[in-house]
Amino acid sequence: MITLHHCVSARSFRPLWALEEIGVPYELKMLPFPPRVLARAFMEVNPLGTIPALEDGALFMTESAAICQYLAARYSPGVLDVAPHEADFGRYLNFLHFGEATLTFPQTLVLRYTHLEPPERRQPQIAEDYARWFHARLRTLAPLLETQTYLCAGRFTAADISVGYALMLAELLGLSERFPPPIAQYWRRLREREGFLRAMRAQEAAALAQNVSTVPAPELRP
Amino acid sequence: MITLHHCVSARSFRPLWALEEIGVPYELKMLPFPPRVLARAFMEVNPLGTIPALEDGALFMTESAAICQYLAARYSPGVLDVAPHEADFGRYLNFLHFGEATLTFPQTLVLRYTHLEPPERRQPQIAEDYARWFHARLRTLAPLLETQTYLCAGRFTAADISVGYALMLAELLGLSERFPPPIAQYWRRLREREGFLRAMRAQEAAALAQNVSTVPAPELRP
Repeated sequence: MITLHHCVSARSFRPLWALEEIGVPYELKMLPFPPRVLARAFMEVNPLGTIPALEDGALFMTESAAICQYLAARYSPGVLDVAPHEADFGRYLNFLHFGEATLTFPQTLVLRYTHLEPPERRQPQIAEDYARWFHARLRTLAPLLETQTYLCAGRFTAADISVGYALMLAELLGLSERFPPPIAQYWRRLREREGFLRAMRAQEAAALAQNVSTVPAPELRP
Repeated sequence: MITLHHCVSARSFRPLWALEEIGVPYELKMLPFPPRVLARAFMEVNPLGTIPALEDGALFMTESAAICQYLAARYSPGVLDVAPHEADFGRYLNFLHFGEATLTFPQTLVLRYTHLEPPERRQPQIAEDYARWFHARLRTLAPLLETQTYLCAGRFTAADISVGYALMLAELLGLSERFPPPIAQYWRRLREREGFLRAMRAQEAAALAQNVSTVPAPELRP
């Protein structure tokens, strides 16, 4: 049985979305955000204190985009996964990493230094530096998405989940109003998917059942 | 023919190291750092302005850890690569992402706000926040490396290149003195590898031949 440790709308939404797209059974353990502070016992599950944390038998994983690739390769070959023999394998890997390292990490700086730090430690300069960075990097996807429905391989893959979560976080942070039109349309296509909607309902139901706040609280790495 | 666009000791050292471990032929195109500022023509090769940029026929990639996984899967199956059917496939993917998203990105903040920004924009608080973050995350590898030579699969893989580059950058930034002993020893093992030494010599020879400074200038994402 797969167990996913999750905070509402945090990076762990990526594996949740992948699990719902694939349709594999899993247990969802909800945590308040940030778990490092509000759920100290979680440090025994994951010494990093970060979410996601995923258990699949003896396997333990903590990197959201890596988990999506793992789930796709193990439980959805030829569908959510792109195999090494396919022409778009390299592009698939690139977008998986791009979604996290290039598009999500900078947004956590915006979040940290505009909202989560106490007022005397807030840093509008940093927030502005990295909001600008995010938009500059995101823009490079627009030409591609003008002509393609998904990022690679001619189908929806785990790479769309990796990049799609970065767009979801941007919306939560108020950064989505500056999306170029092809990216705004792509994001609309993604969030209308049945798998996405099931993942949204799953986190809401689990939060209610486990008495955890449903206020979106994106996971912050620092 | 594979072409790698590279700045000395920047993130693009990951694919360079992978190419030398595998022994596949490639062309190394050296750039001054940062190319976005000092080599504007590079923006036509890579609109992101970042390195690495790798061309392999029609394929174009920009994410250093993704490139290592791609090269391993395509050119080194069963050696540098860990296949989906192997027990450590999930751990392999996790370390590939961990090396970049969790261990390298925070270090670029230290670099940016202590060295690269003009004095009036430097931010000692940010540098300190993310140096602390880096060490806290890195420490979690120590128990594993006390008993294992490499990170996963019982052999040297692309995951060691991903994490190994984060240790190389830490040394350049003066963060390596606080490495816990198992991590210091692991880093020593990595940098004594023939593939690592060949990559170091390759970048030095190419920089000399192409008249690019060999002063280490880690690539900065912002």
